[in-house]
Amino acid sequence: MKLKGFQKLTLTDKALQTWLATLQIKKALTEMLPLQDCTGRVLAEDLIAQMSLPRFDKSAMDGYALKSADSAGASQAKPAMFKLVDSQELCTRQTKQVWTGNPIPKGADAVVMLENTEKKNDSLEVWSQLAPGENISKIGEDLKEGVLIAKAGTRLTPYHIGLAAAQGYAQLKVTTKPKIGIVATGNELAEPGSKLSDSLIYDSNKVMISTACKELGAETTDYGIAKDDVEEIEQKICTMLKNEDAVVTTGGTSVGGLDLVPDAVNKIGKPGVLVHGVALRPAMPTALGMLEDKPVLILSGNPVAAIIGFEVFGRPLICRMLGMAETEPRPMLKAVLTRRVASALGRKTYVRVSVTSKNGDFFANPVSTKGSGSISTLTQSNGFMVVPENREGVSEGEVVTVHMFAPLEAAS
Amino acid sequence: MKLKGFQKLTLTDKALQTWLATLQIKKALTEMLPLQDCTGRVLAEDLIAQMSLPRFDKSAMDGYALKSADSAGASQAKPAMFKLVDSQELCTRQTKQVWTGNPIPKGADAVVMLENTEKKNDSLEVWSQLAPGENISKIGEDLKEGVLIAKAGTRLTPYHIGLAAAQGYAQLKVTTKPKIGIVATGNELAEPGSKLSDSLIYDSNKVMISTACKELGAETTDYGIAKDDVEEIEQKICTMLKNEDAVVTTGGTSVGGLDLVPDAVNKIGKPGVLVHGVALRPAMPTALGMLEDKPVLILSGNPVAAIIGFEVFGRPLICRMLGMAETEPRPMLKAVLTRRVASALGRKTYVRVSVTSKNGDFFANPVSTKGSGSISTLTQSNGFMVVPENREGVSEGEVVTVHMFAPLEAAS
Repeated sequence: MKLKGFQKLTLTDKALQTWLATLQIKKALTEMLPLQDCTGRVLAEDLIAQMSLPRFDKSAMDGYALKSADSAGASQAKPAMFKLVDSQELCTRQTKQVWTGNPIPKGADAVVMLENTEKKNDSLEVWSQLAPGENISKIGEDLKEGVLIAKAGTRLTPYHIGLAAAQGYAQLKVTTKPKIGIVATGNELAEPGSKLSDSLIYDSNKVMISTACKELGAETTDYGIAKDDVEEIEQKICTMLKNEDAVVTTGGTSVGGLDLVPDAVNKIGKPGVLVHGVALRPAMPTALGMLEDKPVLILSGNPVAAIIGFEVFGRPLICRMLGMAETEPRPMLKAVLTRRVASALGRKTYVRVSVTSKNGDFFANPVSTKGSGSISTLTQSNGFMVVPENREGVSEGEVVTVHMFAPLEAAS
Repeated sequence: MKLKGFQKLTLTDKALQTWLATLQIKKALTEMLPLQDCTGRVLAEDLIAQMSLPRFDKSAMDGYALKSADSAGASQAKPAMFKLVDSQELCTRQTKQVWTGNPIPKGADAVVMLENTEKKNDSLEVWSQLAPGENISKIGEDLKEGVLIAKAGTRLTPYHIGLAAAQGYAQLKVTTKPKIGIVATGNELAEPGSKLSDSLIYDSNKVMISTACKELGAETTDYGIAKDDVEEIEQKICTMLKNEDAVVTTGGTSVGGLDLVPDAVNKIGKPGVLVHGVALRPAMPTALGMLEDKPVLILSGNPVAAIIGFEVFGRPLICRMLGMAETEPRPMLKAVLTRRVASALGRKTYVRVSVTSKNGDFFANPVSTKGSGSISTLTQSNGFMVVPENREGVSEGEVVTVHMFAPLEAAS
């Protein structure tokens, strides 16, 4: 007997492009949020400097503002004498004390550092000759009004928030979190926390994919576990299409020779499944679809294949739904591969590695795995290396790029 | 006149060690959270495998379970014949259909792949000879009961969550978010969103530090802006000590020759300020203190110095308060420095760099800066490189380690 297989596997990049192109993801909804709540959110519109920074010429030092011309030829042996005043405007041979950040009074064009002065009652000895502009931060020196601070689609860090605050923004327009519905399928599945009987296993996919979605900035709703039954799956997906911006399923694709979820999706409507079967290890049974203009991501029931399928297709999807032009890269580094890894020609292969740092060098240790089913290979790793289709394995000692999902650990 | 300066700067690492050692940070409070809410939180106790995975011998293939001995000598030309049954236990020459993941019936010790069989009514032709254990995932093969999945102090990723779910955990014990109070000081400061008059500037530090705390997993409360007045600052800090687990201030340290915040802290009680003045650029005026057994982090009013002070002292503090044994490293990579950077001997120096990727190589471009005041140098960067005290600058072309705080961008 021949197992029902994939007639033809689609190349990974092609599969993603086809899907995203068909989806024509709608412009994200937006909301105004107080700065406090904006970290990790995605800018919905270009953030523009609404004022120059500094807003005024300010002192870059603790010292005294004066007209530089009045200090010509001054030295400790031959000080220039100034009259100390406390006014907004200085005349010749007048000086005013300024601290770092203070506005420069009119008429002044330089600041002499405290260290190069000596106060004598209401007079000041200045011991150095100043050039025009010396120790002054000019208006707009840090940032000019109208300049782009961050593009729409930027994920906001505390530094963006800080700069927005310095510009007087109390809130920012960010994209609304996309709503993702997730359902797991499989007669063998039970919810974590429930009592386990017979040959059941706990479902790990739903909460793993859900928390991965949340980590990226989506909201998720749990639609429970569907039995291996096309009609039940169909009903669940229809409910999700009503309530959610996107649908994610796990299991029921290429299981026991059956394609329950792809069949259910195709029964619901057009275009249904766009891609089924990807030249990707370990996520070959992944399928990509669209229903009612909403993306449907059909992941494997095998937890590692599910998470790799999510990594390759779910991340780019959610980034687009968040309003990003490109998929946000994970942190990357280059490391020396400590052991040969095998891969099949024509398949893009995700290899789980544990990167360690030793004497300042980075080493990528492939996490050994029998089959792909165990999530423990992911908790023992901190990154993925990706072997492209045109390679048949990677040799020990090669320098590889690793996409990190957990912190680097020092080798013990 | 000599500006009031620091008698002696403390080396950065020494300052941090002194502070953390004195603090003897209390064991974090803990809470049970549903798996859904655990990503990014920190495990409060070791996560142990409470069952072996797989829980039972399971099929690694779609196929038929059988006794391997019965397949001796089988080939397509000379098939072995089996009787198809549907029972929990197999006798000699019986076989049962199994899909990937199904439990292996008693009596069977191998699975023949579908492709190597042909079904004939209630009989099965088997075309290959099986070894004992072939195509079977043994109980505990992925994970053995009692094994450590993740140590207390681990920040949970979706993969930890997935593995916990596979183990049947519906919730996990995580550390409670530490509560941090933040106050900004300075007569020149106005809240973002308010109307700006005269020589005021918008406070950017409070919300920047607050969101940086939140990003790490702390909760923050905003205590507003205090005037440059020791008593007002004292009052604010006392209120914060009542309500919060730690106190962070910005400004009022080494400003205009005055140390308002350190003075206020020392007036409140002992030990007060432990370190004041760090051999760290650009965060020299940072001070570290303790009051009522609670940490007090006194940051510069200069936004970049504030954030570097937070990076160097605030991050380690919050990591400890979250129950981590070590400071969580930022993602790191090695890059070629594209331009010489200057640094002073004896000072640890944080240089903001923009790392780009070109033809698969990483390049670190120092972000040019006049002074250290502008947050825009941070939004134009994606990482820090750290020049140690024993270096006087770093040359163009040197390979440096960069600590990344924003994604890598491809060079245009």
